[in-house]
Amino acid sequence: MNTLTGRDPIPPTIAWVDDHVELIDQRRLPEDLQIIAVHTVDELCHLIRTLAVRGAPAIGVAGAMGVALAWCRGESIDVAAAKLIATRPTAVNLAWGVERARRADDPVAAAVKLAADDVARNRALGAAGAPLLGAGVRVLTHCNAGALACVGYGTAIGVIRAAHEQGRCPSVWVDETRPILQGARLTAWELQRLGIPATIITDGAAAATMAGGQVDAVVVGADRVAANGDVANKIGTYSLAIAAHHHRVPFYVAAPSPTLDSATPSGGQIEVEMRDAREVMELGGVRIAPDGAAAANPAFDITPRALITAYITEHGVFDEPADAFGAAAEVEDA
Amino acid sequence: MNTLTGRDPIPPTIAWVDDHVELIDQRRLPEDLQIIAVHTVDELCHLIRTLAVRGAPAIGVAGAMGVALAWCRGESIDVAAAKLIATRPTAVNLAWGVERARRADDPVAAAVKLAADDVARNRALGAAGAPLLGAGVRVLTHCNAGALACVGYGTAIGVIRAAHEQGRCPSVWVDETRPILQGARLTAWELQRLGIPATIITDGAAAATMAGGQVDAVVVGADRVAANGDVANKIGTYSLAIAAHHHRVPFYVAAPSPTLDSATPSGGQIEVEMRDAREVMELGGVRIAPDGAAAANPAFDITPRALITAYITEHGVFDEPADAFGAAAEVEDA
Repeated sequence: MNTLTGRDPIPPTIAWVDDHVELIDQRRLPEDLQIIAVHTVDELCHLIRTLAVRGAPAIGVAGAMGVALAWCRGESIDVAAAKLIATRPTAVNLAWGVERARRADDPVAAAVKLAADDVARNRALGAAGAPLLGAGVRVLTHCNAGALACVGYGTAIGVIRAAHEQGRCPSVWVDETRPILQGARLTAWELQRLGIPATIITDGAAAATMAGGQVDAVVVGADRVAANGDVANKIGTYSLAIAAHHHRVPFYVAAPSPTLDSATPSGGQIEVEMRDAREVMELGGVRIAPDGAAAANPAFDITPRALITAYITEHGVFDEPADAFGAAAEVEDA
Repeated sequence: MNTLTGRDPIPPTIAWVDDHVELIDQRRLPEDLQIIAVHTVDELCHLIRTLAVRGAPAIGVAGAMGVALAWCRGESIDVAAAKLIATRPTAVNLAWGVERARRADDPVAAAVKLAADDVARNRALGAAGAPLLGAGVRVLTHCNAGALACVGYGTAIGVIRAAHEQGRCPSVWVDETRPILQGARLTAWELQRLGIPATIITDGAAAATMAGGQVDAVVVGADRVAANGDVANKIGTYSLAIAAHHHRVPFYVAAPSPTLDSATPSGGQIEVEMRDAREVMELGGVRIAPDGAAAANPAFDITPRALITAYITEHGVFDEPADAFGAAAEVEDA
């Protein structure tokens, strides 16, 4: 693995090593921190689909590295790109990363640069958002928008982490985030490694925790931000946004620029991935529902702009989505 | 087991048999339908604490039968009553059932009568509430307020069941209800036995399901209704009530009279049971959070009166909690 993040307590989620990809198998966390070497596009597609690597920024970089793999092996880049983009529909970063590598003269160099950019961008995003969190702030977060959802540092957790580094002593309520439990498994693991106090709660307990006056702010990540500011993020985010609004708790979306999708007018146009019902009815291979039962398993939901207090990007904090998009476009043009 | 409910597809949750109690071990559902014979108060207390028998109406009857056990064995009824009431703090039915049996000349006869009354009361409650559900209604429910939460028939599920029996063809969204998964394990099992179409969702998906226009009504049970109409019920109920309010979906509380607690002025005075953090961090004995992580596990939350559309009791449907309390008091006095 590379050492992009220096003495970071959390190793890089994904890296290009010699002629292949190496990534943390997130399906095995928190029990085992195991690195998988990936040599083929098909193998990488399987790992993306089964959530060995997940999180919008991370799968963006994975997509780029998939194109790089095909290029190194003399395979069709177009076929690889199509396969990679088809793995998961909701996060806009995936197509973004794939296209960046596809258009590059040297897809490997492009993918490696995207990985380095991701960490730098998240550090900038964290620094921009940290002032929103006062001393002793009690933040609630959902799913995992941490280092593991990116190459490193994290987006929503990046904000919390930056506040922690600045001595603001944040503590975190971690929504467990059913069905995959990215909160209980991944976010709790990251926060433990970072030395940030964290308490896991069930997703259903978030509103009651707010009612108890124990939540000062909610910070979540994003899989895609539509042009009007609607946000696709992990299922349960919308429920949380309604509860935050009800309790007048600020609700912040940490969204690095590659997550901003100006081509999608509003949340209604975002495809929400429906995943296998077994993810709801089984846990760790253990069946929890009766045989023959049915379940619905939308992986994401859409939080409308009206419920979002502000957007945190690497360019700053924006109350209006148009300003977040504007700042990103300015840098893109420069 | 007795045959209180005739050819009911769900056997009675709890029954007095000869000189002891028999109950369904709900910890083993939906895999195994196993009946446990209970001969001592301590054993029964353990079964209540570990949720082998749970649900406000069911533990009310269990409390009465616990007093009957002590009486049969020539043990102190007062000691038994104190032990039983101490097992779980939130549901008012427990103390209610214990007191009914304690004050009776023949605690066994009193407990057996409470069990029979429970089923009759739930049938009346179901019949009263069913007209709230139109043809083809899509109802969302949380936790298990079904036959298994009572002696038989159910409260919230009793309403759905009555609508089903009247040919209204309800279908049900079943919140899985972490951490104990009473929805996925128990409610899905009951609805399957009743032939009522059901789809399990994660608790976090309920709001998004409402946003999709797929929920016509929410019906939940209650562990305690305070005099002002605030309701203690399974953790996650409050979150659901906020989401229903946001989407203008009617939110009904099915609350048989023994759940109405005129001695508690408002929700702020209800003790919310805090259960072992391991219930959140383990599932079926499988650890899901990192070693050393912390979790908070409130078993209930408080839904304020303002978020509740109506209260369904065995005496009818009441928009105002005072009217529900009034109807119960009238019958009590008669």
